Amino acid sequence: MIAEIIAVGSEMLTPFRQDTNSLYLTSRLNELGVQVAFKTIVGDNLGHLTGAAKIAIARADIVIFSGGLGPTEDDQTREAVGEALGLGLRRDNEILTAMYKRFAARHMAMPPNNAKQADRLEGAEVLANANGSAPGQYIDTVVGRHRKIVILLPGPPKELKAMYEAECRGRLAASLPERHMAKRMLRMALIPESQVDARTAPIYQQYSDVETTILAGSGEIQLHFQCVKASDAEAQARVDELAEKIEAEMGEAVFSSHGEQLEEVVLLMLGLRQMTLAAAESCTGGLLAERLTAVPGSSRYFVGGAVVYADSLKTEFADVPEELVRSDGPVSKPVARAMAEGIRRRTGASVGVGITGIAGPGPGAAGPDAEKPIGLVYVAASFAGESKTKVVELNLTGDRERIRFWASQHALDLLRRSLLERA
Amino acid sequence: MIAEIIAVGSEMLTPFRQDTNSLYLTSRLNELGVQVAFKTIVGDNLGHLTGAAKIAIARADIVIFSGGLGPTEDDQTREAVGEALGLGLRRDNEILTAMYKRFAARHMAMPPNNAKQADRLEGAEVLANANGSAPGQYIDTVVGRHRKIVILLPGPPKELKAMYEAECRGRLAASLPERHMAKRMLRMALIPESQVDARTAPIYQQYSDVETTILAGSGEIQLHFQCVKASDAEAQARVDELAEKIEAEMGEAVFSSHGEQLEEVVLLMLGLRQMTLAAAESCTGGLLAERLTAVPGSSRYFVGGAVVYADSLKTEFADVPEELVRSDGPVSKPVARAMAEGIRRRTGASVGVGITGIAGPGPGAAGPDAEKPIGLVYVAASFAGESKTKVVELNLTGDRERIRFWASQHALDLLRRSLLERA
Repeated sequence: MIAEIIAVGSEMLTPFRQDTNSLYLTSRLNELGVQVAFKTIVGDNLGHLTGAAKIAIARADIVIFSGGLGPTEDDQTREAVGEALGLGLRRDNEILTAMYKRFAARHMAMPPNNAKQADRLEGAEVLANANGSAPGQYIDTVVGRHRKIVILLPGPPKELKAMYEAECRGRLAASLPERHMAKRMLRMALIPESQVDARTAPIYQQYSDVETTILAGSGEIQLHFQCVKASDAEAQARVDELAEKIEAEMGEAVFSSHGEQLEEVVLLMLGLRQMTLAAAESCTGGLLAERLTAVPGSSRYFVGGAVVYADSLKTEFADVPEELVRSDGPVSKPVARAMAEGIRRRTGASVGVGITGIAGPGPGAAGPDAEKPIGLVYVAASFAGESKTKVVELNLTGDRERIRFWASQHALDLLRRSLLERA
Repeated sequence: MIAEIIAVGSEMLTPFRQDTNSLYLTSRLNELGVQVAFKTIVGDNLGHLTGAAKIAIARADIVIFSGGLGPTEDDQTREAVGEALGLGLRRDNEILTAMYKRFAARHMAMPPNNAKQADRLEGAEVLANANGSAPGQYIDTVVGRHRKIVILLPGPPKELKAMYEAECRGRLAASLPERHMAKRMLRMALIPESQVDARTAPIYQQYSDVETTILAGSGEIQLHFQCVKASDAEAQARVDELAEKIEAEMGEAVFSSHGEQLEEVVLLMLGLRQMTLAAAESCTGGLLAERLTAVPGSSRYFVGGAVVYADSLKTEFADVPEELVRSDGPVSKPVARAMAEGIRRRTGASVGVGITGIAGPGPGAAGPDAEKPIGLVYVAASFAGESKTKVVELNLTGDRERIRFWASQHALDLLRRSLLERA
């Protein structure tokens, strides 16, 4: 059982816009045991669209179109599918009435163009659109001797998702063999993909009934597990068993066993320990604070801090002695330590974190930093009531954006590991 | 002359990964006057890939493959294209020698698998890969009576882009009619797309030789202009003439006339006026500082500031009187004003900006803020030597991420407009 997803719209054939609906649809189809074998992106051109529809109907069992159901002349998905399947289009009075009502409810007259959205393909079921005027269509038919399911969905993601959930998931599930799938994700930070694979492959290869996917990117590795069994409980048990064995192997490298983000994990750990956090950031320029405060409810555990980009602010807001900046340079172990300790004291937080480094593309400032390489970053964490402040030296590679992101990632992971020790 | 781009790789048929190379390739093809009519994404399956190759070669003049040139059994783009075009594959000694040398230069033995990367399609030109081991291939042939150009490029974006620039752009340009294209982009912040279109359409519609594209998203509107003429100068003159008329119509709403980002523009304006900036952020939690410091060289004009998430820090770092927070609530006009003024004084910057608001999803704190709605944000800008601090009240909609981003966007635009007045 394979599927093809066709995204319709000339804007997705420009350098500016990309199809994103297919990621969502793929995830939903996979849950039902359907693999996506092809994705096609085609413009608002009836000939191209009809050709693509014919090809897809020939090579896939399930074909889902997104887009091209609007009221303009450019919107031709209905016509193309009709042509490809040899089905006529009839204006449907029920749809038309519903559309008039929808407009009337908003005290608007329906523009005459919209009437074409009421054109229904012969034999198609109408899929209600809770968030827009274009209804979808669902066709379950036989072509040659093969059963084909063809679904027309609107392009706007909000409309498409709501329509899939309400109108398609159940219909598709009823047409497909019953299926019980469990999923799970482990996340690890700051560890090379090759190492994760070398250590985990001997384990996951013993679970041939669990599909394991390793994804690397943005300073973390994700392990996705997926298993299909006769019952949900059986599938879940296999996935959990494998995940636990891999957690045991990878130990502290695993920061999340149910998919939480690193910043969420740090906030949760602070909450469990009734601790609060403050940050003094130089090279990351607020990125760490931004990541933490992006989490709803973070204000309970993150009090804030300072972006001490200029050297004078390191003294003003984090009590870093001026002579320390002069003697060791702003990018140095002692300054990172002083930043972490200073911001903790100044804010009254239980934990202070300090980040200073050279993000590039230009070199460090004159004085002691002039000879230091781009990518050199120091991250420090200071805990109230403890005299020893941990400082980590990093030598990061890549461009400014990557160096800043990885520096914030290392700071979060240092916090996580430090909090683990204080369980 | 139409093109099809085929992205090869099963990972792009999962919910996790997306083809991005096609955006880059589309932009490059458009420069040569070639429109992309189809994009196909296909997995590492020889049958599917061969089928997709045949379809593309039948319906497009130029077909570009990305991916599937690696050394593993899964990598089958060469085989599929050979099958589709009826061309044999021969192991090429020159490629093989170059590969051995590449590995030897790194003091590594070449794994035997890699040898298949030296398989060259009959009649194909070899495209050197400066950043990896897989060479590309370029086939200029005739199928039926139609000329077809088929290009095989490696999947990693860095390898693909370098190979296109060095090896494909010139070959394609030489095969296509000479073409002189000029491009330009205007950017506007915080103005509805419908308003931009209503005011600019009467202008750009008079320039039927310039292609105008309006893109909306992330708190800004972009107008892209593109024009093809007999000479570069002629094309540039038309694009510039239209851009200038639209700038005259839209006035201050245009923040960038050559594509710069809003944060870059603010930093440039500060530099021209020999001013420096500091920020005190509450609801944006460091996002404004992060956006400014993402720009290389920003440290000359942005000194830093404070993330005053907890109320006590508003006092500690931005001198906001405690009783003001108590009486008016942390999300209030007077507190925003005090934050902007306080952070400016404390840091010695010429300009201070303050942001306070309710980003949600939860309501504001108890006290005076308890009744205030999610999305209420105050943004203030204070200038040294001026007694009047401008404060803007915003009522933003959407989720936490959107409210925070738009708050930072409004802060940048307030700074930009305030700096314009102080030209």
